[in-house]
Amino acid sequence: MSEIITPRTLSGFMELLPKDQVIFDKIRNTLEKTYTNYGFFPLDTPILEDSKILLAKAGGETEKQIYRFNKGDTDLTMRFDLTVPLAKYVAKNYSDLVFPFRRYQIGKVYRGERAQKGRFREFYQADIDIIGDGELGILNDAEIPSIIYSIFNSLGIDNFVIRINNRKVLNGLFDMYGLKDNATDVMRIIDKIDKIGVENVKSELADIGVDKDTVDTIISVLTFKGSNSEVANMLSEYKGRNEIFDKGIEELVQVTDYIEKFGVPKDYFKIDLTIARGLDYYTGTVYETFIKDHPEYGSVCSGGRYDNLAEYYTKKSLPGVGISIGLTRLFHVLSENEFLNRTFENPVEVLVIPFTEDVSVAVETASKLRNSNISTQIYLEDGKFKKKLTYGNKLSIPFCILLGEDEIAENKVSLKNMNEGTQETLDLSAAIDKILAARNNLCSERIVNM
Amino acid sequence: MSEIITPRTLSGFMELLPKDQVIFDKIRNTLEKTYTNYGFFPLDTPILEDSKILLAKAGGETEKQIYRFNKGDTDLTMRFDLTVPLAKYVAKNYSDLVFPFRRYQIGKVYRGERAQKGRFREFYQADIDIIGDGELGILNDAEIPSIIYSIFNSLGIDNFVIRINNRKVLNGLFDMYGLKDNATDVMRIIDKIDKIGVENVKSELADIGVDKDTVDTIISVLTFKGSNSEVANMLSEYKGRNEIFDKGIEELVQVTDYIEKFGVPKDYFKIDLTIARGLDYYTGTVYETFIKDHPEYGSVCSGGRYDNLAEYYTKKSLPGVGISIGLTRLFHVLSENEFLNRTFENPVEVLVIPFTEDVSVAVETASKLRNSNISTQIYLEDGKFKKKLTYGNKLSIPFCILLGEDEIAENKVSLKNMNEGTQETLDLSAAIDKILAARNNLCSERIVNM
Repeated sequence: MSEIITPRTLSGFMELLPKDQVIFDKIRNTLEKTYTNYGFFPLDTPILEDSKILLAKAGGETEKQIYRFNKGDTDLTMRFDLTVPLAKYVAKNYSDLVFPFRRYQIGKVYRGERAQKGRFREFYQADIDIIGDGELGILNDAEIPSIIYSIFNSLGIDNFVIRINNRKVLNGLFDMYGLKDNATDVMRIIDKIDKIGVENVKSELADIGVDKDTVDTIISVLTFKGSNSEVANMLSEYKGRNEIFDKGIEELVQVTDYIEKFGVPKDYFKIDLTIARGLDYYTGTVYETFIKDHPEYGSVCSGGRYDNLAEYYTKKSLPGVGISIGLTRLFHVLSENEFLNRTFENPVEVLVIPFTEDVSVAVETASKLRNSNISTQIYLEDGKFKKKLTYGNKLSIPFCILLGEDEIAENKVSLKNMNEGTQETLDLSAAIDKILAARNNLCSERIVNM
Repeated sequence: MSEIITPRTLSGFMELLPKDQVIFDKIRNTLEKTYTNYGFFPLDTPILEDSKILLAKAGGETEKQIYRFNKGDTDLTMRFDLTVPLAKYVAKNYSDLVFPFRRYQIGKVYRGERAQKGRFREFYQADIDIIGDGELGILNDAEIPSIIYSIFNSLGIDNFVIRINNRKVLNGLFDMYGLKDNATDVMRIIDKIDKIGVENVKSELADIGVDKDTVDTIISVLTFKGSNSEVANMLSEYKGRNEIFDKGIEELVQVTDYIEKFGVPKDYFKIDLTIARGLDYYTGTVYETFIKDHPEYGSVCSGGRYDNLAEYYTKKSLPGVGISIGLTRLFHVLSENEFLNRTFENPVEVLVIPFTEDVSVAVETASKLRNSNISTQIYLEDGKFKKKLTYGNKLSIPFCILLGEDEIAENKVSLKNMNEGTQETLDLSAAIDKILAARNNLCSERIVNM
């Protein structure tokens, strides 16, 4: 016999116990169901791609974090997001796709970041994107927040706000004040305002050579507090001085006006002019989603509008808008804060326990339960009464059906409600009715409590 | 602007167009649903693991095929199956699990095989295993084929047979004829009988030094043709000469007797004594599943009973039984043979098309449809009537709801059935009823025709 190797899982790689996995899968299913309900098609792309493809655009930070290696002559990289593979896919399959192309993808991505609390090296992203061929209507930008709202709502998360901005407003504003050339740096600094505070942002802007008056004006515009219409009014005062800026205001107003029509209540979305989304490629609307009492977790769902999805793979103009939910991180945040209501719903609803040597009746009973769409396990091990029942208890299976000689002789079953501790002997069809009734009483949608 | 990089996907990596992805996901969901219905819990393990863990047991062939690399100081391997990660998981979480532990896992695995037709380097496996703590009842072996049957049945695949054997019968027989020491070699050669034929197996057995009489006897036993009970009777003639052999017959008879009770009709399973499953670690029942008219594809679902799942990670005895469906390969086989009935069911059921500038009514209409669990997309682009309708047509969306000024003024919708080419103007609630009725008329379970 060989040496025993201590079993371990790599740090930064999530691996759940069965009950947590059930909850994780339920959250994942909610996302899938909502995305489908809004008319998105599923997509699955390889986890491994040619490095030349995945790194066409990548800069220094990305390159440092990636898992890249050679196998034979091939230089391979594990995907670090779902956007680059989408860009490749759309460019590759352009002539077979129908535009606007709406796809969702939920899959694992890999980043070799330094392992720390809440940081994962392997994690799920759950993305949707809408890609136009040459052009894409602005109202798509207004639909996206309604999808975020619908998902959080289905998950029972109530305490969140979607912050919205438009990069054209920022770019136009910077341009107005002669900052066009270092717009990217200014954007990157502004983006940190939540983390480092207004004063530090001001001093960092001064450090890159922005004069004090400009800094003051820009910061006073961006940190203006008010309702969405008040912010819009304030911005209007700067209208007519820069084309990009004016276009930005128009888009921002149109999008925020429509978001409510798309079913998102006023309290759940807000213009926030400090939201910049560091990524270069956003060109219009940008979104971030925060859990209200926990700004420290940052945005749990972000995205925006871009002009050119696949410029590295095709000359076609493919504008799009999309969001990404960090599913692994969201699950981690929820469980860390005991947001997950532990009234875990067992995917296995019935344990059929035979107490006779011949288990034929148990097998028939289980088949009938399964045909009624009741998930059923038969206990097929030897053992005493107590051992068998303890198994159902440990697995938190809500119902046991006991089949002894008496039950079989009378053509009945004994149904034990494990939560209530009650037991009764009845016809199988009556037992099935009781099990289904109990299932419908569960407030099945509400799995998370905040 | 940078150079255009031709977008490509690595050879051996499956990437589907949206309609095929929908069918793939449907097959995957059928597997998940069936596994859950039989009382299996979901599991998700990392794709990357410490090489020391994954390769604890691996031999030469595995080592050659794996994707293995270093990141910093860590020697990493991409998983090549779902069994080794399960072994690690069970050993690691032993004290938190309830035994028998029933888990399913559907996930991608990686093998750097030479790319050839029907061979994938990244592919999905869909596994179930039942793991006991110290012992595991033999009836679990009889339940497994009923799960295979249920899945293939749900997929509309009718033309298959599950072949069953027991390694103890083989080992006992070899032992009886003095072949204990080269049982593994003998097993490996016998396993090829479907591929290379009886005569070649005989000559290969002779090559490793098995004498002619023994070869003839063994081959005549193993290739005996008859019903399950005739095979059992034939084997009984050899009883009393070897303990392992006798135990094997007892298990094989008990398992095959029960398989029918578990709901698998006689035509769908068959004792086949030539099934050996090359893998060392099977110790009892073994299964293979063949599509009847296509033996050339080999087994599409295989597995068996093993004594020790996790011997490399724990001293505990963890016997189990399980199967693995090669999901990517199954999908490939089905589509290559036009088995997939292309009456593809669109996950998006309705396209709401506004013909007014204000899309508020379209948005409200879509919300009501979605609240009735009807997947709905709103067409949010500008364009002429024809362009908008063509979009719905190209996406094969079964219904379009048209909203012009007239419909809005009358508080009605125009419902266009895209398959039948009919159109009528009616209340939204009546339209919803029609859409739901049409959905229920679809023979939704039958997605595959053989």
